[in-house]
Amino acid sequence: MSVVTALDRPTGAIHALPSPYLLFLGDTVEMGFAKTALGLRDWAPDRCLGEWSLPSARVTTGLPRLSPAEAAAKGARAMVIGVANPGGIIPDSWMPELLAAIDAGLDIVAGMHARLSSITPLAEAAASQGRQLIDLRVPPADLAVASGLKRSGRRLLTVGTDCALGKKYTALAIARGLAARGVDATFRASGQTGIMLAGQGIAIDAVIADFAAGAVELLSPAAAPDHLDVVEGQGSLFHPSYAPVSLALLHGSQPDLFVVCHQPGRETILGHPGFRLPTIEAVIEQTVMLGRLTNPAIRCAGISLNTGDMTAEAAGRVIEETAAQLGLPAADPIRGGDAFERLLDACQA
Amino acid sequence: MSVVTALDRPTGAIHALPSPYLLFLGDTVEMGFAKTALGLRDWAPDRCLGEWSLPSARVTTGLPRLSPAEAAAKGARAMVIGVANPGGIIPDSWMPELLAAIDAGLDIVAGMHARLSSITPLAEAAASQGRQLIDLRVPPADLAVASGLKRSGRRLLTVGTDCALGKKYTALAIARGLAARGVDATFRASGQTGIMLAGQGIAIDAVIADFAAGAVELLSPAAAPDHLDVVEGQGSLFHPSYAPVSLALLHGSQPDLFVVCHQPGRETILGHPGFRLPTIEAVIEQTVMLGRLTNPAIRCAGISLNTGDMTAEAAGRVIEETAAQLGLPAADPIRGGDAFERLLDACQA
Repeated sequence: MSVVTALDRPTGAIHALPSPYLLFLGDTVEMGFAKTALGLRDWAPDRCLGEWSLPSARVTTGLPRLSPAEAAAKGARAMVIGVANPGGIIPDSWMPELLAAIDAGLDIVAGMHARLSSITPLAEAAASQGRQLIDLRVPPADLAVASGLKRSGRRLLTVGTDCALGKKYTALAIARGLAARGVDATFRASGQTGIMLAGQGIAIDAVIADFAAGAVELLSPAAAPDHLDVVEGQGSLFHPSYAPVSLALLHGSQPDLFVVCHQPGRETILGHPGFRLPTIEAVIEQTVMLGRLTNPAIRCAGISLNTGDMTAEAAGRVIEETAAQLGLPAADPIRGGDAFERLLDACQA
Repeated sequence: MSVVTALDRPTGAIHALPSPYLLFLGDTVEMGFAKTALGLRDWAPDRCLGEWSLPSARVTTGLPRLSPAEAAAKGARAMVIGVANPGGIIPDSWMPELLAAIDAGLDIVAGMHARLSSITPLAEAAASQGRQLIDLRVPPADLAVASGLKRSGRRLLTVGTDCALGKKYTALAIARGLAARGVDATFRASGQTGIMLAGQGIAIDAVIADFAAGAVELLSPAAAPDHLDVVEGQGSLFHPSYAPVSLALLHGSQPDLFVVCHQPGRETILGHPGFRLPTIEAVIEQTVMLGRLTNPAIRCAGISLNTGDMTAEAAGRVIEETAAQLGLPAADPIRGGDAFERLLDACQA
């Protein structure tokens, strides 16, 4: 089997974002809708200069409040829409602030369903000022189908029993934990929030199905033999809507290692009450079986548990029980501690 | 688990084609590149009025030769580009004939990578004449993510050990064979040639990954309890580039039955010599394991063998051996015969 090297592959289709950012909170009144901004504050503080919002907003990241013009004067290069609303739309009430950001010389970055570039006043202002409107959900152009060829470097993928239980933050925490140990590790973002955090990446769920595995190959390209890409997973092989995206990430990243992410206590697939959550064992078995296609040496490095809604004591207990039951390291990367160090040991091995 | 009924689902995103067709062969000199036109002649003769080509063409379907104006006078409603060339492009030399077709009142249908609508003279002519340019690879708009909800009616999916070995023609032959027995069966096309044959469908490989399984739900909607949709599969779960598309078809169609398509003698995945072809047994096992997610009752109805390049004797032998080895009906639907009747029995059961 031939091996692809780093020089063989183009990178044009990967979004690369201008930073630092001004985080825009719109008129959001519920913290739950400001998840993206809060994630950026916590995980990419050096990319975030400040926040801006409408007077009616009731949420804050605690970062300095800066108008677009003030942020631009301090070196900001983009205003990032850091909130979502139920329809994923951009309300008219946000327009004056978005236009002010463009006038101040900032690009606009969004990961919503609504496309910035399809809003005429924004498109016109950006064109006349020479600014970019970056829609992270717009499928990249110029993708190729996956080659399936083995490539140099090592890769780790986070997979899950479901959506929305920590695959992104697990990948970030592992990449940072290993980097702190001196490992040459890179977080590879596959979703819009991850792309904002990393400053680059491809929203794999927005790619045409034929090219999805190929886009993952591009996202985690051939690298030095000791290099480790820690790839953000999406969805679950057991998710009735998103399993094809999860499979594209598995086949395309050709992972040597994977970490299963799970939220103890979750019993059914989010939004699909007719589907029972798979066991962690079932996820390991199916990931190995399908992942073997592009990497026969694939294996599970350990388990990441999202214990955010548990007491420290209960979390410690479920982490210990999970590790004992599966014979694999288990940890909540957000809690860290010895358990997480053991998980990092396994990812480094 | 709730059940979706036929009335719950929209159908706007499904391509519905104007017919009958005039088949356009361009300046093609090799029969291999006229596969689409030949398939239309053989499998959808009542949709095909005739053929048209440039003087330099060296291929023919044997259908009456009609200019676009003659075809329009006989009732044709569209000119279908029935040939491919290596780059999937539309050469300048075809333009006068395409424009003549538009002038004659025909729509143009193509399934190539190049988009009709991005060729300015065609787009302008179509707009001024009120004609449609139908690009079957353009992802449909207004798709939704899969619901995963069990829906009424029965479905059969053709799956494969690889690409390009008979999933489309197997599905067509089964749908027709069952219809001839009085079963209420419909062929559901998931690729561009299939859509031309059926007159409607969705090219699933052109859909955004997030919506791929949802598009398959739309393609094979809820139906009367006795109705059988025979869904054209794509790719293979063992294909390093296209497995996500195959999985979307499996999860989205929720098949009660599947038929494994295989070409005896093929040893590696087409275009990927580093990947050994899976065994039929492995395909059955993996299809059942993954298909259970949306239909726990999924089972294999039998095997379709593409024996086009074998003698009748050798074909008969491999069909018999395969059936004996797997304990399942096996047939080459193109050859038909008793073996195919037994496969139809199993699909009807």
